[in-house]
Parts: sequence; structure tokens; C-alpha cells
Amino acid sequence: MTAIAILGGTGQQGSGLARRFAAAGARVIVGSRDAARARTTIAAWNAGAPIEAAANAAAVDEAEVTVIAVPFETVGALLAEVGTHFKEGSTVVDVTVPVTFVGRTMTMAEVPEGSAAEHIRARLPAGVQLAAAFKTVPARLLAAAGEPLDCDEFVCGDSDEARARAAELVRLLPRLRAVDVGPLSRARHIEHLTALAIAINRRHKIHDARFAVVGLP
Amino acid sequence: MTAIAILGGTGQQGSGLARRFAAAGARVIVGSRDAARARTTIAAWNAGAPIEAAANAAAVDEAEVTVIAVPFETVGALLAEVGTHFKEGSTVVDVTVPVTFVGRTMTMAEVPEGSAAEHIRARLPAGVQLAAAFKTVPARLLAAAGEPLDCDEFVCGDSDEARARAAELVRLLPRLRAVDVGPLSRARHIEHLTALAIAINRRHKIHDARFAVVGLP
Repeated sequence: MTAIAILGGTGQQGSGLARRFAAAGARVIVGSRDAARARTTIAAWNAGAPIEAAANAAAVDEAEVTVIAVPFETVGALLAEVGTHFKEGSTVVDVTVPVTFVGRTMTMAEVPEGSAAEHIRARLPAGVQLAAAFKTVPARLLAAAGEPLDCDEFVCGDSDEARARAAELVRLLPRLRAVDVGPLSRARHIEHLTALAIAINRRHKIHDARFAVVGLP
Repeated sequence: MTAIAILGGTGQQGSGLARRFAAAGARVIVGSRDAARARTTIAAWNAGAPIEAAANAAAVDEAEVTVIAVPFETVGALLAEVGTHFKEGSTVVDVTVPVTFVGRTMTMAEVPEGSAAEHIRARLPAGVQLAAAFKTVPARLLAAAGEPLDCDEFVCGDSDEARARAAELVRLLPRLRAVDVGPLSRARHIEHLTALAIAINRRHKIHDARFAVVGLP
């Protein structure tokens, strides 16, 4: 049974992933700045499957795969805190999107590295592998346990192994297909897709716009 | 019957649009630097519906809607040539994508305006309306007359009227849905989606990856 740490696991996106991974039988450790508060939050979920809580660094210590689900603007501080805890050869899965809101206006943050995933890569130890996934499935839908996802999820990464591990996480969730799109530099396209989904939601007054690839058997 | 000029209409994307618009009953004028050569090219298509040829500026003179389908790197020169020919209130539909290939490596050109569509906007007369569409439907598939498209096509633009006109063009093509994604600044997300489709094609050795929005009734 894979042990998955989810840093930022009490947020909407992280909590949806935590509950769905736990429901699929994975060992899930929700990482938070405050483990006690996270424990209280998790208890209120009535998740139906055990979910652990720990301080971020302790969660990383326990995990084979660590999911980064904190708001993009706090990624730098998080990695400065937990960076030395990643085991050599372990895998990190980035699910963040550099989208910011000023009132109702959505903009993508200018990320010098080209994408949130590459921003994280630049702040991870060299021996840690990085993939990006779960960037386009809507957070609200993820958090609505039991609602079918019925879409494709795009995976890219800096090694075949990182992509394979991220794709395994995607396949833990029923009715979600993993689509490998290649190297980590493709993350910028995926992050723009999330912005497009948000634009479609706004324009059409819906909540869960997401994507399926046509033409891929 | 709408008169549609397609500048760059002998290229793969432009020719696919020309033939499919003509098959739908629209009056189509293929614009080219060399009208006589375009006429020869069009005759070889055996399109089954009449398609006219003209020099670029003359094509614009005839049209209510002008489609820009030249390679992105030639857009500046084209607009310098035909800019004064656009009628006040007419609509331009940009279908270009700022993707370049060095050998097998795909990269997106850095466009100071943020997207090919905004680059074109900056070079069009103020009285002309601009929309973007047909950026994600694969050019090869478009050019394969008779093959069903079966996907969504994203439309954005600088006015409701421009978006409505571009959506009309999308609806001329059977089994293609127009999805309005809002203002012209959304074009950058759409252009990244094209790059993602190319990445998927490469990775999975397919040719016609395209997208459908899930969750939009």
C-alpha cells in the first residue's frame, strides 16, 4: 500500500484528493502547518476510511509519494521547510496552478521558470523526482466525494518513473484517465488549460468544466 | 450567404477550412500572395463546391469575414499589406498558433502581447473586430474532408459580435461545437491547448488529438 503525503491536504483540492485516495485503499497522511488542527478538520470529514494527520515535514518522512497541494504562492516557503525531508528517489507530485484572483478577475502569475511545476523543480533536491498531475480536474468536484469525475487528467514529469507514479495516483480515482503528455516543461500548457476551464466556468455559469481528449484510443 | 476570405487558404489549415466552409454553402475566397497559383491549387482539390481565388488584398475587399490562416511568423507582413482593406465593422478570425519546430522539438514563440491573437489585434485597424477560433482542431483532420471532427472549438474575442461571428463559422462545420471562453486575452490559454495537443500526438504516436469540454451542457 503506497503511503501518500498530501501537503496542503486540508484545502479544497488536497482534501478531495485525500478522501478519494483513502477511499481507494491508499495510506494517506495529510500534512499541515498545524497537525492538531488538521486532525480536527479530518475528523469532521467523516471520510469513511482512515486518514492520518501530521506536520508537513513529518508527513514527508512517512511517504513514498508527496503531493504538493498548497496555494502556489506558499510553495517556496513550504519547500524551504520540508526540502531536507524528501528521501532520495522519492516522488513529488505537483498539483498547483499559478492562478490568482483579484476580485473576480483571474490572471496567471508570471512564473520565471515557465510553470508552477518548473518553479517547484528548481526548489527540490536533485535526487527527488517530480511529476505534475491533477491540475485540471476541478477542486470543487474532487471534494464532492462520490461525484463521478469522467474526464482526462494530464501527467507530465522529469522521468518515466515520476510520470508512472503520478499516473498510478490518477488511476486510483475511478472514471479518471491519465494522459501522459511528456516532459515537465509541458506543465505550462496544462496550467493554461486550468485557466481555460475557469474561464469556461465563469462564462457559462457552471462549476466543473473539465476536459477529455478526443482521438486518443 | 456570408463571404469568407481565407488568407493563407492554400496551407493545410486554411485549405481544410476553405473546403469545409464551401461544402456548407458559404462563399469562400482563398487569399494568396499569388492568385493564379492559388487558382491552380484549388482546382486540384476537386472540392465539389465553388471556391474563388484572389490576391490577399482583393480577397479582403470581397469579404465580410476574413480568416487569418498564414503561418504566425508572417502575420506582421500580411497585415502591413492588407490592413487598409478591412472594412469598418468587419470581422477578422485568427486561427494561428505561435508554435515553432526546430527539428522535432516544439516550442511556443514568446509573443510580447501574450498570444498570437493579441499580436494580431495590435496590428489591426481599430474599427475591425477580432475573434480567435479553430486554433485547436487539428489541421490534418480539417484537411481530411469528410472525416468527422467530433470535438469542441474554443472561441474568444474582443466583442460579443466578433465572438458570435466566429461561432457562426464554427457551426458551419458539422459535429464541431463552439465554446465561448470570453475576451481575447483568453487566446493564450487556447494556444497552449494546441501545444498540448501536439505534445499528446507526439507522445502517443497519434495525429488528431483534440478536446471536448466535460460538464458543459
